[in-house]
Amino acid sequence: MAHLSILGTGNMGQAIASVAGKGGHTVQLLGQGDVDTAVSGDVVVLAVPYPAISTIIGQRGDQLAGKVVVDITNPLNFETFDSLVVPADSSAAAEIAAALPESRVLKAFNTNFAATLASGTVGDSRTTVLVAGDDADAKSILIGIVTSGGLEAIDAGSLTRARELEALGFLQLTLAVSEKISWTGGFGVND
Amino acid sequence: MAHLSILGTGNMGQAIASVAGKGGHTVQLLGQGDVDTAVSGDVVVLAVPYPAISTIIGQRGDQLAGKVVVDITNPLNFETFDSLVVPADSSAAAEIAAALPESRVLKAFNTNFAATLASGTVGDSRTTVLVAGDDADAKSILIGIVTSGGLEAIDAGSLTRARELEALGFLQLTLAVSEKISWTGGFGVND
Repeated sequence: MAHLSILGTGNMGQAIASVAGKGGHTVQLLGQGDVDTAVSGDVVVLAVPYPAISTIIGQRGDQLAGKVVVDITNPLNFETFDSLVVPADSSAAAEIAAALPESRVLKAFNTNFAATLASGTVGDSRTTVLVAGDDADAKSILIGIVTSGGLEAIDAGSLTRARELEALGFLQLTLAVSEKISWTGGFGVND
Repeated sequence: MAHLSILGTGNMGQAIASVAGKGGHTVQLLGQGDVDTAVSGDVVVLAVPYPAISTIIGQRGDQLAGKVVVDITNPLNFETFDSLVVPADSSAAAEIAAALPESRVLKAFNTNFAATLASGTVGDSRTTVLVAGDDADAKSILIGIVTSGGLEAIDAGSLTRARELEALGFLQLTLAVSEKISWTGGFGVND
């Protein structure tokens, strides 16, 4: 069983905590006010909006060394909903990996709406978490947590693929905000 | 009813022709050898691999003026399967629109595997064609063709969104090539 620390108590943090709990894993759920509590998990999920990431890295960078760090952000320009705020040839995950060279950084969950993590379904399909990263063991640990919690998970490739995952998350958010899809639906993965 | 010209007789060209036919539209299907036959459709689908696009624009650019031109390409580096060959801040569709300023360029079908256009389903969901473009009337014409042929279609926004559609198509191809998903499945859209 794994022990996770989830930073962020919003919809996504709670939904990911619930998935991990269903799988029998233990979770430390930390909010903004818990800055003085060190992370105890071997897997740390950064379940905060993208603009809060740099603050967390500043506060907790040392604590994250040696850990599997999961970036779930969609780094949108939320004023225009027309672009990402990371460079076109990079990704939030790549930036985080560069800032945390001693962590094993994964991109995951950014293509899943919270409601689909809770329900376990997207339409008639099982909710699938796409996981990208350069460390095979780290991906295997996270995929094990997700599948033990009743969801599907797919290894989507190297951390370079975070760029495409962020594009997918961005597109899905624009479709939901413009009411082309609902927040309980979105992109399902069918094998 | 619309009249389409489809350039390209491969799996995708044939599948799109079939969808249009089911909707009661007429189709002119042209292969590489038909270079001397002018396109007669008001909607022209460029159903060729990305590297062939520049040749077609050179041969037929004048014929495409005033027409709705549909780009379905996934401009992958097919040697590495690890990047696109268009600039990170652009898209194949943006390049085509720049080369054809008198055409109304749409991005569509690049997130659909041919088998899902033919079957009408992705898993248990109806196959959904995502359409991006800057001309609302052009999008409406293509969405009408797709839905009359029995598929779903969603207006995915401006042509700028082609970048995200190409990222989605790229990701989906990498998952199929690595056998994480099948060529009859992929990303379904659930509203």
